Amino acid sequence: MSAYDDLMAFTRETQALAQIAGRLDWDQETMMPRGAAPQRGEECAAIASVLHARRVDPKVSEWLAKLDATELDETARAQLRHIRRSHDRNSKVPAALAARIARVTSEAQGIWAEARSSNDVAAFLPVLEEIIGLRREEALSSDGDLYDALLADYEPGTTGAELEAMFGALRPELSSLRAAVRDAEAPPKLSGDFDEAAQMKLTRKLAKTFGYDMSHGRVDKAVHPFSSGSGLDVRITTRTNPQDPFNCFYSTIHEVGHAAYEQNIHRDYLLTPLGEGVSMGVHESQSRIYENQIGRSRAFTGWLFGEMRDAFGDFGIADEDTFYACVNRVSDGFIRTEADELQYNLHVLLRFDLERALISGDLGVADLEAAWNDRFEADFGFTVDTPANGVLQDVHWSVGLFGYFPTYSLGNVYAGCLHEAMRAALPDLDSQLARGDTTGATTWLRDNLQIHGGLYEPRDVIARARGAEPSEAPLLAYLKEKFTGIYGL
Amino acid sequence: MSAYDDLMAFTRETQALAQIAGRLDWDQETMMPRGAAPQRGEECAAIASVLHARRVDPKVSEWLAKLDATELDETARAQLRHIRRSHDRNSKVPAALAARIARVTSEAQGIWAEARSSNDVAAFLPVLEEIIGLRREEALSSDGDLYDALLADYEPGTTGAELEAMFGALRPELSSLRAAVRDAEAPPKLSGDFDEAAQMKLTRKLAKTFGYDMSHGRVDKAVHPFSSGSGLDVRITTRTNPQDPFNCFYSTIHEVGHAAYEQNIHRDYLLTPLGEGVSMGVHESQSRIYENQIGRSRAFTGWLFGEMRDAFGDFGIADEDTFYACVNRVSDGFIRTEADELQYNLHVLLRFDLERALISGDLGVADLEAAWNDRFEADFGFTVDTPANGVLQDVHWSVGLFGYFPTYSLGNVYAGCLHEAMRAALPDLDSQLARGDTTGATTWLRDNLQIHGGLYEPRDVIARARGAEPSEAPLLAYLKEKFTGIYGL
Repeated sequence: MSAYDDLMAFTRETQALAQIAGRLDWDQETMMPRGAAPQRGEECAAIASVLHARRVDPKVSEWLAKLDATELDETARAQLRHIRRSHDRNSKVPAALAARIARVTSEAQGIWAEARSSNDVAAFLPVLEEIIGLRREEALSSDGDLYDALLADYEPGTTGAELEAMFGALRPELSSLRAAVRDAEAPPKLSGDFDEAAQMKLTRKLAKTFGYDMSHGRVDKAVHPFSSGSGLDVRITTRTNPQDPFNCFYSTIHEVGHAAYEQNIHRDYLLTPLGEGVSMGVHESQSRIYENQIGRSRAFTGWLFGEMRDAFGDFGIADEDTFYACVNRVSDGFIRTEADELQYNLHVLLRFDLERALISGDLGVADLEAAWNDRFEADFGFTVDTPANGVLQDVHWSVGLFGYFPTYSLGNVYAGCLHEAMRAALPDLDSQLARGDTTGATTWLRDNLQIHGGLYEPRDVIARARGAEPSEAPLLAYLKEKFTGIYGL
Repeated sequence: MSAYDDLMAFTRETQALAQIAGRLDWDQETMMPRGAAPQRGEECAAIASVLHARRVDPKVSEWLAKLDATELDETARAQLRHIRRSHDRNSKVPAALAARIARVTSEAQGIWAEARSSNDVAAFLPVLEEIIGLRREEALSSDGDLYDALLADYEPGTTGAELEAMFGALRPELSSLRAAVRDAEAPPKLSGDFDEAAQMKLTRKLAKTFGYDMSHGRVDKAVHPFSSGSGLDVRITTRTNPQDPFNCFYSTIHEVGHAAYEQNIHRDYLLTPLGEGVSMGVHESQSRIYENQIGRSRAFTGWLFGEMRDAFGDFGIADEDTFYACVNRVSDGFIRTEADELQYNLHVLLRFDLERALISGDLGVADLEAAWNDRFEADFGFTVDTPANGVLQDVHWSVGLFGYFPTYSLGNVYAGCLHEAMRAALPDLDSQLARGDTTGATTWLRDNLQIHGGLYEPRDVIARARGAEPSEAPLLAYLKEKFTGIYGL
């Protein structure tokens, strides 16, 4: 066995343990009995401690030191890049701190869910403050900006300042488009009662339509939809609301984008660092292009209209064009995950700015709710009614995810780039989508992006697929054309 | 921190990891997509390897060597007894072998399920032979009899020869009682179609009636019912068959016996070696006393009759006495888990003898089906019709469980002892059970046995609860009285 083989055998076992840790999270959100939370906290802490010990194991440094990258092929060099990055980052974080973060965030999820259902912000703040303190402590072990250190967990090679510049270019354009849309006549709103079992049935059909492989996954309900796992076992969750079947369907399509990415990575990379999506931003590009550029296109919504008529009968929308406008209706809403494409990034920018301030210390948790509500009113023009519709709406902070939110908007930018390239490569795309056939689109995404897993750096894999460096321009052009058309601007 | 505190902190983390490994098994049987099996095999191997490394960690020997048991209290001494036993046993098994057993048995479960559903014994034999070889290899690392080494995993302090003697005392008495019953007139058999959703609803009510704590557990369906986990998260599975609701109900009550034992152990022992049922035999004593001595008693079946009438309407059984006889009907059947109390132990003795011969090498897998079928015909008087009703019926061997089957009959013997003592302590028991109130019985079992977890050795905890050494005599007396009464012998 060479040093490379030894290192990869060790790494493969670590990846398998990481999959187990992810499965525990899935279980916690879908299956776990409520009273198990304290014990689960111990379990999560134990596996986090094992994973941390392996990631900082001195054997890894020794193997890495023995290896000459120039003697290795591109794949092996990419494996080493990921292993070295993980080893270096984790070596800076003490095992006791990693275990404590795992334990506290595991318990915090239950506290958050309770606080959200009882609209009790105060009940969530102590544990939120504890989590922020722990993640600041973690970030302090890296040099440089605290927020950038956290961001590196989700989007290696990107800084808060770079994102701020990109979001700065997006924001005025989105604001101006949004103002124009709000002055125009709105399309009809979906109304009525949509049977939840029928929603789940159609949502499973949609998952399959978008290439989700049910023999390597499953669909369950959870408070907050998510995708979990890599390789041969990639599970998704969705939610139902009798008044809002689009929430169910587009949550599903979104999570299928994440899950299909994980399922479609080259099988040679299974249980290695290359066998996972390369970054959260690239991941989000897949979920968003599935959800929006494909799922909310005029062509695909034409097919979906027929499916919904079959499932629910006449639901008060007369034709495909009206349905398309209805699907893409820009509404005043509080909830990020329910937001239309146009306003979605404004939700994200709010969180990005607030969480940077929380981490820097410029904002304390006692002032968080007021800061959220003020910013929301400034950006959206109306007032948050309840904490469940405001500061308590997202699970992210309760599980310690700081630096994660901006990857959503980065993903939208990347989705814009990919969509432009995919349209150029597939002139027939709309006629396929109009038949409910996503094979052309999902195959293009698989072959040009998903299959590579972690082989290329995040920005590079987008550049390869696009044939040019990433830019926010295609996303803006797409949004302008789409909403100008729907709203007759 | 003293050496004891260090050892217990390390052990507590190991116990948490062991709970995770158990949760993976639960997931595999209930939730996991089929195509995930190869990856799950890697995951199981990885966590087994971590657990094995911790159980044989030289730090454990060092801590144990530093500790003077005479300075510790009874609880601490019991913890050390378990830790030392686990450390010694595992130190004899190489990590690579442990990982290989985990991987092969994980994959074998899928192969077994396929073979069983297609009645294809040959498809299962190669992996069965591999498993037997691996477990023999494991047993060879201990001194003494190979089968006893495997038995020690499930029933420490018991040997195959001791069990053979005990089963030798049981067998002629059971045979003679069985012969008398078969010559007598049989009670009516349950027939009709029983809605499976209604079965699941009543089965959940039964679980709660027997004290199962749903806030620390859940009930799902699986091919083979089981209980999984300890402490705050103890899950059970059951199955439904429209023609046989008793299968569902008594599988549930059986698994609730196992699960209540785990849920009721003293909370001070959570995630320590004392926080688990002390042996499989003692575990089975709980499942069997819940299922049979309580659940199939005249008093409790009187209440269940009313519940079934409420759930299913008139199902063709006229009164409580007839229902009681019907529940306890002795039928010609192939399936161990569906067998009545009278014949159940004959099923177990068959497996005990065959698996001892497989492990000793006296029997090869190529001859297993014929050996099973011959023995079955000799013991039961009729012929096995399909492998799914014969040699492929149980999951145990596919997951590597050799030495496990005899603990079922040992559990019945222990249940007989506990039942005798419980009846003496609770003269009012039958009037409680007739109201569907198991509180007296389950509280007595909790306080006299379950709460102790691993504090006492298996045989000792039964002796303490009984107030005398264990014996097969109470079980035989109970069975004779019960079936003499029902069959008017």
